[in-house]
Amino acid sequence: MSKNMLPKGFLAGGVHCGIKRFKKDLALIYSRTGCKAVGVFTKNRVKAAPLTVSKDILKKAAPIRAVVVNSGNANCCTGWYGVRDAKRMINAVCRNLKLKFNSVLVSSTGIIGKRLPIGMLEEAIPELAEKISQKGLVAAASAILTTDKKMKISVEKFEIGTKQVIVSGFAKGAGMIHPNMATMLCFLMTDARIDKGALKSALKKTCDESFNAITIDGDMSTNDMVLLMAGGLAGNKTIKKGTKEYRAFLKALEKVTSKLARDIISDGEGATKFVTVCVEGARTSGDAEKAARAVANSCLVKTSIHGENPNWGRIASAVGASGVKDVKQNRFEIYLDGILVFKKGKFITPAKAKFSKIYKRKNVEIIINLNMGKKEAVIRTCDLSKRYVEINSHYMT
Amino acid sequence: MSKNMLPKGFLAGGVHCGIKRFKKDLALIYSRTGCKAVGVFTKNRVKAAPLTVSKDILKKAAPIRAVVVNSGNANCCTGWYGVRDAKRMINAVCRNLKLKFNSVLVSSTGIIGKRLPIGMLEEAIPELAEKISQKGLVAAASAILTTDKKMKISVEKFEIGTKQVIVSGFAKGAGMIHPNMATMLCFLMTDARIDKGALKSALKKTCDESFNAITIDGDMSTNDMVLLMAGGLAGNKTIKKGTKEYRAFLKALEKVTSKLARDIISDGEGATKFVTVCVEGARTSGDAEKAARAVANSCLVKTSIHGENPNWGRIASAVGASGVKDVKQNRFEIYLDGILVFKKGKFITPAKAKFSKIYKRKNVEIIINLNMGKKEAVIRTCDLSKRYVEINSHYMT
Repeated sequence: MSKNMLPKGFLAGGVHCGIKRFKKDLALIYSRTGCKAVGVFTKNRVKAAPLTVSKDILKKAAPIRAVVVNSGNANCCTGWYGVRDAKRMINAVCRNLKLKFNSVLVSSTGIIGKRLPIGMLEEAIPELAEKISQKGLVAAASAILTTDKKMKISVEKFEIGTKQVIVSGFAKGAGMIHPNMATMLCFLMTDARIDKGALKSALKKTCDESFNAITIDGDMSTNDMVLLMAGGLAGNKTIKKGTKEYRAFLKALEKVTSKLARDIISDGEGATKFVTVCVEGARTSGDAEKAARAVANSCLVKTSIHGENPNWGRIASAVGASGVKDVKQNRFEIYLDGILVFKKGKFITPAKAKFSKIYKRKNVEIIINLNMGKKEAVIRTCDLSKRYVEINSHYMT
Repeated sequence: MSKNMLPKGFLAGGVHCGIKRFKKDLALIYSRTGCKAVGVFTKNRVKAAPLTVSKDILKKAAPIRAVVVNSGNANCCTGWYGVRDAKRMINAVCRNLKLKFNSVLVSSTGIIGKRLPIGMLEEAIPELAEKISQKGLVAAASAILTTDKKMKISVEKFEIGTKQVIVSGFAKGAGMIHPNMATMLCFLMTDARIDKGALKSALKKTCDESFNAITIDGDMSTNDMVLLMAGGLAGNKTIKKGTKEYRAFLKALEKVTSKLARDIISDGEGATKFVTVCVEGARTSGDAEKAARAVANSCLVKTSIHGENPNWGRIASAVGASGVKDVKQNRFEIYLDGILVFKKGKFITPAKAKFSKIYKRKNVEIIINLNMGKKEAVIRTCDLSKRYVEINSHYMT
């Protein structure tokens, strides 16, 4: 499937406006007909101006015609100027594409606390408005990156009756990836015709299972949002919740978001390993998640994975410290890359040949069975490397 | 004041028994007359065997005559053997010093999940029992270290009437230092004559302000304990809670524990900076602590301090994500090394000469005024360096 495929009715593009020195730093998504749009936003109490502005516009529930996004500057902690500059970005798009204010969303990512060089942005928008095209997904995806090493794009197709439906998405991640929408942007587009309630519940469900189930360093950012826009040009019968068509849509959306979430982890700052932490046998889903997050966020566990050192003791300790009530050290089990290493409160010596394989591959799997119930949770993360420290000692966000 | 001074009636010593290759790894504290003893233990649900055994003995409230501590092996996650081996350590001490089982405490630190080489320990105890002396504090303090680079000892003297009272303590720390007694051992001794209730409350108060107010990497360990033993040979009138004498004792104990806590932070794995995070103007102490811990545990904040990069945006973001209710980004202020950098939701540009000094010294101070109330909290931590990753990628705990 073409990596560069946009759903019917969508155009996109990206240009270099000058916030970054050489790379593209301004992206635009455009919908010919207007979309239903829903969003999920950071829970950080410190919120960037573009988030407040976009949330307000989404509340008005007018059709959305465009999204403008810059990288290199988060327009966060910029005081009164922040909101004004975010609105100026929208107004520049409105002028060039003849749109109404309430039909355009805005988003920013990059350095916190520096005023947006709004003049540069306004000057670049006419060029950007001309450049958008059906083949502009890659250009847009590259224009939203910050410390990311790779572009993150995902496209899925499926059929409803005789109609082909497309779901396309692009994202940025890198540092600070944390549950609850931390420092990441993701823009999802589809030509499906779908009921707004169904759209909302599909976004929530897929976010919980993808972006909210990943963590890089436990920090939560000020700017992050996921947007899902549905234009309706695929010509299918309107998708309603609870139908077969809804399930097909959900499945495609899940594929797109889970691929983007995986890409974000794999491209985590300094990451060399992709780590899946699965907690089973918990009494409640909340307990399972708590234990999985405790392990996934432990600096000691993450450095040991980086060193390919199967230090199960740190995992046992993280589970014990996770705050899950009544965890009994004699009851839970730990499997590393499929090999049982901890049971009945002690180390199970595996065959040396097996043990020496643990943590050696790029994909690492930690399974913890609490043996207390039937609930489970999966959290994905990466290792903690010297490169992470290097990047974050000097990058000014 | 001599660094090597023990309170009246205490002897100590340390030897090499062979768990580590070359360094001392077995320590003993001995009280000629028996002590009142109180302890604070890790809250990790996974607890090492020596902790369970020592807690049980403390409950019996018999006078404590000795404490035996090994480093290099935590005797944790060792199943049924763990408790047996911890008891064998106690029994070996009992045999050699003619003590009763319920008068000896045991403690271990080091690798998790490997059985204690109990034979080696038992063989070394006769030599250790012979070597203990009034000048053995340094030997004992060095025998409990793991990845620590330096010994941690603190001694204070004060007077009650004409009687001199001594409080001596030694500790180990390094990785995993976290609130709630995580991976650290601390042994405190005094010759003060003091009521048991007063002893307990003094330990709780000083721990809350010292060891429970520091964090290195947010991880919490399985083995940690603080013991406070009072022999009563100073000859003072028994100290009771709420008296002038109690306050004098508390003050001396606070000096000892706060110095040891500072030493632990300064010697944190790979630490190059000593960081004090102070949150003022909170509605509740709980809120103040939550915000301070969020900042002190943020990998992004800690790496920026390491890089001497005054990235106040990450601090603002950590405060916003801390979970403190109703934090308003337009209301709180951030001071870095005494310089106001953030107010009314935006960056306050300080004079360049001032700004360039931030984070340059070894001692870094972050003050956050939430402007919501009158409560405050202080948490101390260190920076996050490449050396931390290096140490923890390979060390097998």
